Amino acid sequence: MRRIGEGVLVFERAPAVLSHGAVGGRKEAEGPLGSFFDNLHRDDSRLGKDSWEQAEAALQEEAYHLALGKAGMAGVELLFAGDLLNQCIASTFGLVQSGAPFLGQYGACSTMAQTALMAAVAVESGMANTAAAVTSSHFCTAERQFRTPLEYGAQRSPTAQWTATAAGCLILGREEEGSSPVRVTGGLAGRIQDLGVTDPANMGAAMAPAACDSILRYLRGTGTSPADYDGIFTGDLGEVGSQLLLQLLGDEGVRLEAVHRDCGLLLYDQEKQDVHAGGSGCGCSASVLCGRLLRELEARNLRKILFCATGALLSTTSQQQGLSIPGICHIVEFTAG
Amino acid sequence: MRRIGEGVLVFERAPAVLSHGAVGGRKEAEGPLGSFFDNLHRDDSRLGKDSWEQAEAALQEEAYHLALGKAGMAGVELLFAGDLLNQCIASTFGLVQSGAPFLGQYGACSTMAQTALMAAVAVESGMANTAAAVTSSHFCTAERQFRTPLEYGAQRSPTAQWTATAAGCLILGREEEGSSPVRVTGGLAGRIQDLGVTDPANMGAAMAPAACDSILRYLRGTGTSPADYDGIFTGDLGEVGSQLLLQLLGDEGVRLEAVHRDCGLLLYDQEKQDVHAGGSGCGCSASVLCGRLLRELEARNLRKILFCATGALLSTTSQQQGLSIPGICHIVEFTAG
Repeated sequence: MRRIGEGVLVFERAPAVLSHGAVGGRKEAEGPLGSFFDNLHRDDSRLGKDSWEQAEAALQEEAYHLALGKAGMAGVELLFAGDLLNQCIASTFGLVQSGAPFLGQYGACSTMAQTALMAAVAVESGMANTAAAVTSSHFCTAERQFRTPLEYGAQRSPTAQWTATAAGCLILGREEEGSSPVRVTGGLAGRIQDLGVTDPANMGAAMAPAACDSILRYLRGTGTSPADYDGIFTGDLGEVGSQLLLQLLGDEGVRLEAVHRDCGLLLYDQEKQDVHAGGSGCGCSASVLCGRLLRELEARNLRKILFCATGALLSTTSQQQGLSIPGICHIVEFTAG
Repeated sequence: MRRIGEGVLVFERAPAVLSHGAVGGRKEAEGPLGSFFDNLHRDDSRLGKDSWEQAEAALQEEAYHLALGKAGMAGVELLFAGDLLNQCIASTFGLVQSGAPFLGQYGACSTMAQTALMAAVAVESGMANTAAAVTSSHFCTAERQFRTPLEYGAQRSPTAQWTATAAGCLILGREEEGSSPVRVTGGLAGRIQDLGVTDPANMGAAMAPAACDSILRYLRGTGTSPADYDGIFTGDLGEVGSQLLLQLLGDEGVRLEAVHRDCGLLLYDQEKQDVHAGGSGCGCSASVLCGRLLRELEARNLRKILFCATGALLSTTSQQQGLSIPGICHIVEFTAG
């Protein structure tokens, strides 16, 4: 592993993508990416469990086992996982049966990038020969934990985003060069950015400065420009945050328009699905990565992308105490050989 | 980094302990380790802040800056931090001003070992030249989040533990051999263990099986026995959990009695301080490590220790839904040269 610029990591041994799995719910099934999921729960958002929290845990368990199964693997040597629930219980209870060493991660909606980055570091460094990155979100658990009981039917503001009911799992390993077409070739750990946004119904605005900071550091550290990538995918900035990101980067002389896509705007149909400013939640960027993007890389429709998942590091307590919403953005570079 | 046995990491470049800081509150000041803290808040458990949550964030900020100051450093290249608050807001708000890349960790009360392990991996692998591990807990934030409003004056059961108001910060770096006497020489990521304990007032019992699993794996992986260490320090099993750990290990033919100490039993005076089964919280093992243990290693009163912090991976939601309390234990080996 080489470190260049202000913290850009170059993975010289380039951990290989051994497998990936994505699962979702009904709204995800009905969206434009429905066909990219490995499994979809169209009829029961509780997955037959007693609670939504246990359903979310089951989403992680399922994504992990689907990914293992696709690669014919029995397990991994190390797990990195996290989610939005208090004390990350979807990860704990979803992966308790795995029997694998477990390192809980908290990056809010940036968790897919954070866990993938840690899994890449683990494989690259020899910490583990195989490592999985897992995360999830669930509309019903997030609404009742962060906002209001679903039964209220509270009206949502136009800048609000829709928490995805979905999970993703990425498995990395040390496979010899050539046996897997997709590899992790770079990464960056984000810095917390806080520009004073306090509206929890406008997470995109809270996270855009972090995405700007990380993307700028990555491009400058690597000496690359947006044109060097087939896509620069932010996590879930949604419509409002995406516009702000393009504006912030434009002010720095970087034109991202041609290659920028946002997972929160890819997962749902903005015209037909009434998700307001777009999708969000750890499961949003996780399922877009593990469902569509990695398949596109494997098919070599994409050759080199930056996956830049963003997170809003608030809690209901910090909100109630009037604090602002700090954001963070971690980056993972995937290359198809 | 070499990997031996079932996941034991051997740090061949042995990241050096560049600095450490520990801060605490009044009860910690009055305990037997009071003289080992870098700063103590005897008179104001709010640290002059508007809320206990902001006070806990301030504990992390202070531990980080005290550690930086002792080493004459302006900052680190990478931060690993986490805490018990929902969405880890003590870490976010405590370290937002640091300007350093930040990777949030969630390991409940095992967080000091988890962050130290990750910092060691980061420095050993070249992910960062310097990395900090930071965590905290606060009696008042934990009580009102996990148990009852303090104003209730709820009676505590004999197996209950007292959440420490404390924070610790450990800074690791690549300094050349000889310049620092204490190094991280080994580590292990724990596996989640769930033996069905459901009593949240008996965390020690919930965590003991995880400590047993990790310590056994470490000893077997390294081919060492308890006598090879000057101390094997568990995080915060307290009286009940410690007894269970010794019993569980005894059943496996391992006698830990001679070298076992528990941070939850070291931080407070069991006779005089009315903490029931002992101390707990991320800040408990963090301040014992960063206050006393590292000083003892620097003074070469200790030469080789295992730091085995334990965590109970529950939330109020999982409790209310009747789920059991899974535990985890991560291990870091420190050696004084």
